[in-house]
Amino acid sequence: MQSYALTIDKFLDHAAKWSGEREIVTGDAGKTAQRISYAALRERANRMSGALAAIGLRFGDCVGTLAWNTQQHLEIYFATMGAGLVCHTLNPRVSAAHLAAMINEAENRALAVSANLTSLLDDVLPHCPCVENVILLDDAIVGRSARIHRASVWTYEALLEAHGAAVAWGGFDENAAAGLCYTSGTTGKPKGVLYTHRSNYLHTLRALQADALAVTREDVVLVAVPMFHANGWGLPFSAPAVGAKLVLPGRHTDGASLAALIRDEGVTFAAGVQTVWLGLLDHLDANGGETPSLQRVLIGGSKCPDALIERMEHRLQARVQTSWGMTELSPCGTMSSPSIATPLATRASGRPPMGLDLKLTDAHGATLARQRGVVGHLKVKGASVVDRYFRAGEDELDAEGYFDTGDLAQIDAEGNLAICGRSKDLIKSGGEWINPAEIEEIIGAQPGVGLVAVIARRDAKWGERPLIIVQGQKGETIDTKALLRSLRGKVPDWWIPDQVVETDAMPLAATGKIDKTQLRANYAEREPPAGANR
Amino acid sequence: MQSYALTIDKFLDHAAKWSGEREIVTGDAGKTAQRISYAALRERANRMSGALAAIGLRFGDCVGTLAWNTQQHLEIYFATMGAGLVCHTLNPRVSAAHLAAMINEAENRALAVSANLTSLLDDVLPHCPCVENVILLDDAIVGRSARIHRASVWTYEALLEAHGAAVAWGGFDENAAAGLCYTSGTTGKPKGVLYTHRSNYLHTLRALQADALAVTREDVVLVAVPMFHANGWGLPFSAPAVGAKLVLPGRHTDGASLAALIRDEGVTFAAGVQTVWLGLLDHLDANGGETPSLQRVLIGGSKCPDALIERMEHRLQARVQTSWGMTELSPCGTMSSPSIATPLATRASGRPPMGLDLKLTDAHGATLARQRGVVGHLKVKGASVVDRYFRAGEDELDAEGYFDTGDLAQIDAEGNLAICGRSKDLIKSGGEWINPAEIEEIIGAQPGVGLVAVIARRDAKWGERPLIIVQGQKGETIDTKALLRSLRGKVPDWWIPDQVVETDAMPLAATGKIDKTQLRANYAEREPPAGANR
Repeated sequence: MQSYALTIDKFLDHAAKWSGEREIVTGDAGKTAQRISYAALRERANRMSGALAAIGLRFGDCVGTLAWNTQQHLEIYFATMGAGLVCHTLNPRVSAAHLAAMINEAENRALAVSANLTSLLDDVLPHCPCVENVILLDDAIVGRSARIHRASVWTYEALLEAHGAAVAWGGFDENAAAGLCYTSGTTGKPKGVLYTHRSNYLHTLRALQADALAVTREDVVLVAVPMFHANGWGLPFSAPAVGAKLVLPGRHTDGASLAALIRDEGVTFAAGVQTVWLGLLDHLDANGGETPSLQRVLIGGSKCPDALIERMEHRLQARVQTSWGMTELSPCGTMSSPSIATPLATRASGRPPMGLDLKLTDAHGATLARQRGVVGHLKVKGASVVDRYFRAGEDELDAEGYFDTGDLAQIDAEGNLAICGRSKDLIKSGGEWINPAEIEEIIGAQPGVGLVAVIARRDAKWGERPLIIVQGQKGETIDTKALLRSLRGKVPDWWIPDQVVETDAMPLAATGKIDKTQLRANYAEREPPAGANR
Repeated sequence: MQSYALTIDKFLDHAAKWSGEREIVTGDAGKTAQRISYAALRERANRMSGALAAIGLRFGDCVGTLAWNTQQHLEIYFATMGAGLVCHTLNPRVSAAHLAAMINEAENRALAVSANLTSLLDDVLPHCPCVENVILLDDAIVGRSARIHRASVWTYEALLEAHGAAVAWGGFDENAAAGLCYTSGTTGKPKGVLYTHRSNYLHTLRALQADALAVTREDVVLVAVPMFHANGWGLPFSAPAVGAKLVLPGRHTDGASLAALIRDEGVTFAAGVQTVWLGLLDHLDANGGETPSLQRVLIGGSKCPDALIERMEHRLQARVQTSWGMTELSPCGTMSSPSIATPLATRASGRPPMGLDLKLTDAHGATLARQRGVVGHLKVKGASVVDRYFRAGEDELDAEGYFDTGDLAQIDAEGNLAICGRSKDLIKSGGEWINPAEIEEIIGAQPGVGLVAVIARRDAKWGERPLIIVQGQKGETIDTKALLRSLRGKVPDWWIPDQVVETDAMPLAATGKIDKTQLRANYAEREPPAGANR
């Protein structure tokens, strides 16, 4: 059969040829800021490849992006990957020191930066001698000096106009690097995951299955997950692959902005983390408004409480697809089906589409004899799963080639995966394990509760004790005693925390997940309440 | 990212692990003859791999199959491919001489043969010294001698019992050969297409997209297309890949048998050629009966007249998905969407899913400047498209790597492909081209017409003249003059044939397509009617 390299440029080529007039829309605080067709975007991205070559970038070089979900960010995706450059998406919410370390490790020769993020450059660039060129997206910076530290500065449109030239995309091996993304690093030093063209291509085909994302040419896809977060869950590839209209919200993913975009652009399918949807629900509840075009919402990033899913399905009148994934998986892992009205109680995080192998092991890595109905350590294998971290000296794989996700999970008789916590989050109290995720699930379902996290508080007597940190839904007050009572009979008595801390500002990691590292820094040494330590 | 070979065994492994209790049902004249779970079938197929090794088959060896759509045929598919053997599906409707030539060219070391096809062996085996083992499927032959000519004879179950042993599947390169299928050869010597694991794996993922086959775990898939016809359109791979229930009709694909299976097994999705569906409709019209579970019917093999599609959608109350493909494409090419109520007039043969590139050229191979709204020669490119025929000395590809399908096609503004005929079927009359496909489309829509073909009759004055051959629907008489009148104003006057031939038995190729080679042999030298040759 034909030799046919699985490279990313083919997605945009396919869109330009077969759905050339379908649109990519960029929002700005809920208003439509930009609108372009796939055919025109393909032409611009391809000429930008020529411009990047003109300023000296060569096959295999890394281009960093510090950018929101915008048309120009999408163009940079394809301009780099199509030409065999590596698109290194950087999370602007990470500290300058971490950013500089990532940029240096990847030896980024250029940085593409959204207009309102340029202030980061002064903190970062002095530490990054490898960066020779800065490309200012959105063209909001006029009259900015031609150099920042050692780097030449271009505005995107000026660069495209001065040096844009059509080039031949692809033509290299499918195992060439395409993208680089660092894990959020909530549990240690950020680690880079280097995606290849092959891994992203196969991830896309896996996600497009009718039991998974099931995105079609009829869909209008809102990418409310940042494009710097693990390929934007692959949507910048799967939408053009099928010719779906793409809606990029820009910088603003607050409830009001998303509600306006969904309404104005007729969004049918939206993807994002639970905090984003909580914001949308709170906005709709407070201000009214409906989302009649919305058919499905994909929720990922971390386990979403059933109560929030119910609230979403009721308020949005849309089907919620739960999922589980991670940066190391490109990132989609399991997903609940779009087509079945699976009861919420058994939906969990769904099933693995063809192309991803899962197994459960014990703490020592031995495969569990029973793979159903028991909690084990989740290991994964597949063409879109990391083998070793970027610049690491050795593979992360076990003898059978599986990667350890660090998650504890259980699989039901129908094959639905339920994440039961992180192996590193487990709390050891009096020599026995407490799983904070089980407590969070129950508390999260109580009235008035918005966000909840359970972490270990250091304890002189028991070693560790669980502590609940909770943030109420907008305007709701929380009865903390009732929260603790809700646990009775549902978890062992000795699991029940001694204390509930209320907060107005749950710390969130850059990906929107609750930042347990920060919580531990704030609360791990907290004194026990009087009368505790039973 | 992980090295993860795209091999076929992974489909059945996935089914056994994630949908282990979903069934594969084999019919026999409409009754359910066999029923097995994916988990059990995987275990049997895997042990059959061990048995094949025990009788001397080694990596890369070819095993021929002369078999209907049955459980054991499916087991042989996976038993061979999983172990790196090549499954060479042979069409039992082909002549013994052609079969022997194919078996010898592929050097088949074993043949797996359905019970009622063993009579073919006496005609074929004396000419095939390479065949060392014959495996009798269905175990209907008891007391048959232990040898036929030079070959040892096993019944399937006896072989499995005597030598079955679990083996490790996969572990080889994804570019290894997996299957071999010869084209139907209606236009010349049959040519072999050697599928690889990679080409079949990627074909499966392409077909599973929500805009294409869109088969899910909820589906019950009836494979009414023979498994010896281009991988059974890939359904033996795509059904286990998603855990869909599989219904194999055995030898009988007459209307009564299919109606019974659809009803008894709750078939939701069925795939086959137009003659099969015509049989189903005629049966239902004559005998009554409904198909309430049926949601979608995939129709392929050759262009289906709109009139038949309308009749199907009305009578079956199911959505018809049109398609175009060929053995050389593994075989799916374009497909109309399952989700949109595209008007029939524009549905044509649908659009190409991601992973297949199409272009239209002129007769000399130059890409047409306009790719929409004009008829051109259709060329294709992709990971599941042939590069050279089996044992051929050279590639079939043009300078850009495209394969010439031999089809004439047109693409509308929405990207829907309409096949306009075969370049070799064109009729040259008085130095100008007549496209028989356009005449067939109009005649096929006339009342009472079942099957129609237009071929060239040799003509002393004009070189060639078109001739209509028509078969009426059951019990209907045809007004041949009205047929000719129906063409007036729709095609140029000089295209209108001088003559209509009625037949009770349209010759069909082994794939169910109308056999134009046979028609030409019967009718090309037919005398013109008196008064013709205007």
